[in-house]
Amino acid sequence: MSQRQEAAMFRTLVASVAMLASAGALADEGLWTFENFPADKVREALGYAPDRAWLDRVRAGTLSLDGCSASIVSSRGLVLTNHHCVEGCIAALAAPDQDVLTSPVIARTEADEKVCPGQEAFTVTDITDVTVRIRAVQAGLSAAEAATARAAEVDRIVAECEGGAEDRWCEVAPLYSGGVETLYGYKYWRELRLVLAPESAAGSFGGDPDNFSFPRYAWDAAFLRLYENGQPAVTPQRLKVRTTPLQDGEMLFVSGFPGETGRQETLAHMSMYTDTYYPLSMSLNAELRGRLIAAMAGGAKPRGFDALLAGTENNFKRDWTELASLRSPGFLEAMAAREAQFKADLAAQPDQAAKVADAWTDIELAMLAARRIFNMRYLSEYAGAGSTLAYQARQIVRAAFERKLPEDERLPGYSDAAIESLRRGLDNEAPVYAEKDELLIGFWLSKLREYLSADHPLVRAALGRESPEGFARRAVAETKLGDAAERLRLLDGGVDAVTASTDPLIRLMVAIEPEARAVAARYHEEVIVPREAAERRLNEARFALYGSDTYPDALSTLRLNPGVIAGWTEPDGREVPSFTHFSGLLERETGAAPFKLAPLWEAAKDKLDPNTIFNVSSTNDTIGGNSGSPVLDRDGNVVAAMFDGNIYSNGGYYLFDPKLNRSVVVATTAIVEGLTKVYGMDRIVTELAAD
Amino acid sequence: MSQRQEAAMFRTLVASVAMLASAGALADEGLWTFENFPADKVREALGYAPDRAWLDRVRAGTLSLDGCSASIVSSRGLVLTNHHCVEGCIAALAAPDQDVLTSPVIARTEADEKVCPGQEAFTVTDITDVTVRIRAVQAGLSAAEAATARAAEVDRIVAECEGGAEDRWCEVAPLYSGGVETLYGYKYWRELRLVLAPESAAGSFGGDPDNFSFPRYAWDAAFLRLYENGQPAVTPQRLKVRTTPLQDGEMLFVSGFPGETGRQETLAHMSMYTDTYYPLSMSLNAELRGRLIAAMAGGAKPRGFDALLAGTENNFKRDWTELASLRSPGFLEAMAAREAQFKADLAAQPDQAAKVADAWTDIELAMLAARRIFNMRYLSEYAGAGSTLAYQARQIVRAAFERKLPEDERLPGYSDAAIESLRRGLDNEAPVYAEKDELLIGFWLSKLREYLSADHPLVRAALGRESPEGFARRAVAETKLGDAAERLRLLDGGVDAVTASTDPLIRLMVAIEPEARAVAARYHEEVIVPREAAERRLNEARFALYGSDTYPDALSTLRLNPGVIAGWTEPDGREVPSFTHFSGLLERETGAAPFKLAPLWEAAKDKLDPNTIFNVSSTNDTIGGNSGSPVLDRDGNVVAAMFDGNIYSNGGYYLFDPKLNRSVVVATTAIVEGLTKVYGMDRIVTELAAD
Repeated sequence: MSQRQEAAMFRTLVASVAMLASAGALADEGLWTFENFPADKVREALGYAPDRAWLDRVRAGTLSLDGCSASIVSSRGLVLTNHHCVEGCIAALAAPDQDVLTSPVIARTEADEKVCPGQEAFTVTDITDVTVRIRAVQAGLSAAEAATARAAEVDRIVAECEGGAEDRWCEVAPLYSGGVETLYGYKYWRELRLVLAPESAAGSFGGDPDNFSFPRYAWDAAFLRLYENGQPAVTPQRLKVRTTPLQDGEMLFVSGFPGETGRQETLAHMSMYTDTYYPLSMSLNAELRGRLIAAMAGGAKPRGFDALLAGTENNFKRDWTELASLRSPGFLEAMAAREAQFKADLAAQPDQAAKVADAWTDIELAMLAARRIFNMRYLSEYAGAGSTLAYQARQIVRAAFERKLPEDERLPGYSDAAIESLRRGLDNEAPVYAEKDELLIGFWLSKLREYLSADHPLVRAALGRESPEGFARRAVAETKLGDAAERLRLLDGGVDAVTASTDPLIRLMVAIEPEARAVAARYHEEVIVPREAAERRLNEARFALYGSDTYPDALSTLRLNPGVIAGWTEPDGREVPSFTHFSGLLERETGAAPFKLAPLWEAAKDKLDPNTIFNVSSTNDTIGGNSGSPVLDRDGNVVAAMFDGNIYSNGGYYLFDPKLNRSVVVATTAIVEGLTKVYGMDRIVTELAAD
Repeated sequence: MSQRQEAAMFRTLVASVAMLASAGALADEGLWTFENFPADKVREALGYAPDRAWLDRVRAGTLSLDGCSASIVSSRGLVLTNHHCVEGCIAALAAPDQDVLTSPVIARTEADEKVCPGQEAFTVTDITDVTVRIRAVQAGLSAAEAATARAAEVDRIVAECEGGAEDRWCEVAPLYSGGVETLYGYKYWRELRLVLAPESAAGSFGGDPDNFSFPRYAWDAAFLRLYENGQPAVTPQRLKVRTTPLQDGEMLFVSGFPGETGRQETLAHMSMYTDTYYPLSMSLNAELRGRLIAAMAGGAKPRGFDALLAGTENNFKRDWTELASLRSPGFLEAMAAREAQFKADLAAQPDQAAKVADAWTDIELAMLAARRIFNMRYLSEYAGAGSTLAYQARQIVRAAFERKLPEDERLPGYSDAAIESLRRGLDNEAPVYAEKDELLIGFWLSKLREYLSADHPLVRAALGRESPEGFARRAVAETKLGDAAERLRLLDGGVDAVTASTDPLIRLMVAIEPEARAVAARYHEEVIVPREAAERRLNEARFALYGSDTYPDALSTLRLNPGVIAGWTEPDGREVPSFTHFSGLLERETGAAPFKLAPLWEAAKDKLDPNTIFNVSSTNDTIGGNSGSPVLDRDGNVVAAMFDGNIYSNGGYYLFDPKLNRSVVVATTAIVEGLTKVYGMDRIVTELAAD
């Protein structure tokens, strides 16, 4: 494509996005609710749309797993989700000497299925619009009074909805920033057992290099089972699993619980964040990553380093890909067009425009304030850069000082109730990894000194004449914060206890608290409060203008998105295909991590059908929280589990770019092939196929 | 200051910068030539301006040191510059077992002064406008013909100017992008000896945390001596040194050879660079830095790691501070206002506007092309990420293939003459540090795979099924490129030799050359050529509009800038003072590097006058190349050596922001105090004071 043609294409994208604000979303964009699914629009764009019976069936078979989603895939409670959604359960259930990188956790018989500690799940059973009821109690009140009245009425609605039933849970979700108040009733599943979790070498084959990428070869699947009263649950709402091959261009639906989007976020807010957060966060994570890689290069594995490296690499890559996606051709222009369209529509409605007043200017000024202190606030609040000890010391010290203030003058997160919850978090015997904490505390202090300068009052208070590394060594050796009783003694002892403490980490946090609190408070008052107030005005006006013709931002409630199987064209011109097959997995292996096959896969590789479709790219609009989601064909059969997106999916928080944003899913064809030929789990294959 | 007040202040900055394009520069902005110094304007703004005699004297006493500047400060050829400008000489002259971090290199007597190998210097003796002469040979020619005609005429002018004299050198500088052609005649100094270079612990006290910062406590000074015929040179043009204390607000002049600015650069070009280069370069340098810090944490010091870490930290911080400075409040708005003003002025001159045509659109389209392939091109051209072996392999392989093409179809940098110069570079016995090369090659290949993806043809060609680290280990163990004779054999053997080679590094570069060359060529054709052509049209129009009422961009020729001693107010509200004193040095020491005093300073610290002014912040407009520059008072006496800038000085490539951009200089008061009380170099103090 020539440059001028491409410029024309951007203009088309910009124009089509500009229409969204008034005319609703593009065909494959949209985190639609089940109760307001735009069947006519989808049928017109894609040639098919599900009916009410389809929607009800899929709703009942879609599970929320606390930050992930899942499918119920047998009438005996079998659940399909992602490997990466059950890593906590794997850690709890793996044998003490098991290397979960290279060996799976498998329950060979139903009797071997063990409880995943703390794992809960929910299915949506009923959906009710309660907007009128909530508006009734808010009539004539100020904004602050209305918020209080809403909270009280929501408590009443939820209590009525739950009716004291053990297996029921309800919530009122303020869709469209409160434009529509929707009551969701859930069936509460309190017992889930692990059936099969693959080795990490299979579940996240390709590791960091392939993370957020496609082509991809990850068997990112896992099976759990719902239990009730110690028996497999009876789940007639199960979704059927299809194992015939997917076709390029085929329509796919993703049902699940997407976490959070900000598709109405202003350009001013986004660009402040882009200009400040990404450079700082990426630089910190990149250096920390380098330190961890080099520290382990000789084969040394201090405890906690492996997990810290994996988390740091994921954080770095998430930032990198988000930024890449915001910088992709046409993305910013499309955001700008959307904002301009809203402004134009608003100008045509003087009464709404008057209510909004100068909300955009207020946000711009708040962002100007944010830019001035962003680094200082981030580095100060980043206490310990992930060190458990340092973070606990910060919480204890801050709670002590905040508790002396009236609740409405405290920093966010330090109400009495929040401190009570913080106390529960401190009351545990989780292990401390001294080398990890020493590394992280030294790193944090050296970065404070580097970015704020050796002369900054906070840095002077923190270090005096000590070096960052010297302090970290001494502090980790001397601190008693590894002991839960000592943490609680200090927390409960308040200001007197923390100021009297000689614990080096407590002393550090006491010394810097005046500066740290001041910047946190300043950020809250100059940035967050005015921005949120202005956004509230914009959101109210937006709902008044467009109503529910478009979809509400994600907020971890049940949604459905229609899309199609498709690859994409990279901005540099390369074509990326829609499918990968097992043959590609075998080509990709190098014998060295993260491209090394796990032993069971190595043993089975000659038996695998190389033509089996493995991972698939689709235009579905998904976001964090959708991991593990049922991916369905037109008939409502499960054909895959959603598990990731490409680089450009990371811009999806702000905007869905149909040219580039792709979901990545693992096909049931590959899941069944692995169950049979790698894991010998025919019992599950049989169960999936049962009527 | 309230937010709204600050917003008003930005508008003032924007407005004042907008005036520049037509009305010339602000008072303390401007890399003015000595031949066109705006004395009236400076006098009006700052109350004083030098006369012609002052200018001639300072010109003659200002030295160019190949990338740095310096002052001649005695009539026996004594030269004052920065410690960081003589690091190559220190490495050459230090004793084999000397730790230059903690011990200085001192010539106790004149007889001890040793030659700095390869060090040359220049002073400007005469300046002639040769515009008319060059225009005469260009009349009626096309752009390409005119460039050729200019080159030939410049050769003639330079030959006449040098007249075959041994100690003379001449150059024609195209000021204002060729609007004014200026002939500079230089006296050529071929022998410089080292008199005193401090320890790094003094010269760059504060290390990376203090780099590009203020307050600062660096004795970044060094003394050389000009020799002729084995004797100290006779230099009546010496500048006098003042050692009475500087006063806050006092006017300072910086004379020197600033390297390069792009103060007319378009927003489109700058923002492409900001959006692509900084995230990638900072992430790469941050991770490499982390790897090096961790690799040396246990006290191990593989050869070359120390210097590599210092360079990597400096590169990271330069990028970080440049970006911080571009993101500082009002900076972008000021650039936009300058561009808008130029567009408005141009619109008022239809004949000029017609010549410019759609230059801005051309640049925008070129930048769109750049964004699409920037990462791929950067990572591919970044061959080896600093590994000498990998870089040499790239040069040898590329030269072999390019040499088969006609010169005008080759990649830039591979003309016959360039290959000849590259051959000289390969013909040396510089040591290879195997661990460093292995680290860098493994790092480079792992980043290629991470950023381009395991599926990219270049990555597949590079790695096959080998891992980055495995390849690096094997390649460094097996390669014969450490041997200069083998490098030359391969270079001279051309395509046949490199394709027949089994050397793993040569094979690597041969394997990726088709992809690597394609992206380099594409970037050149789609980005560089159209951008440069469009910029040429803009620059010609700009000179037609404004002539020499403003100053020309820096290009390593002699310039003078007037400013005043002043601190600044940080965007977050903190006030930074103008001066530091020896007392602050003693407060800042922690006993741990980089805040550890060197032994001689530790021994002398009780003798130092704590009130001595040490480093100073000033509003002078300086840029890389000004390091070591004479800093002069109104009387033309040397009062300091310029050595750095604050964070915001790093935006000075694009724009001088008078609110925030500050130069940092080391005062002669501190230099003399150190010479006397730390180094016992009274012979130099006496020489400085002599008439």
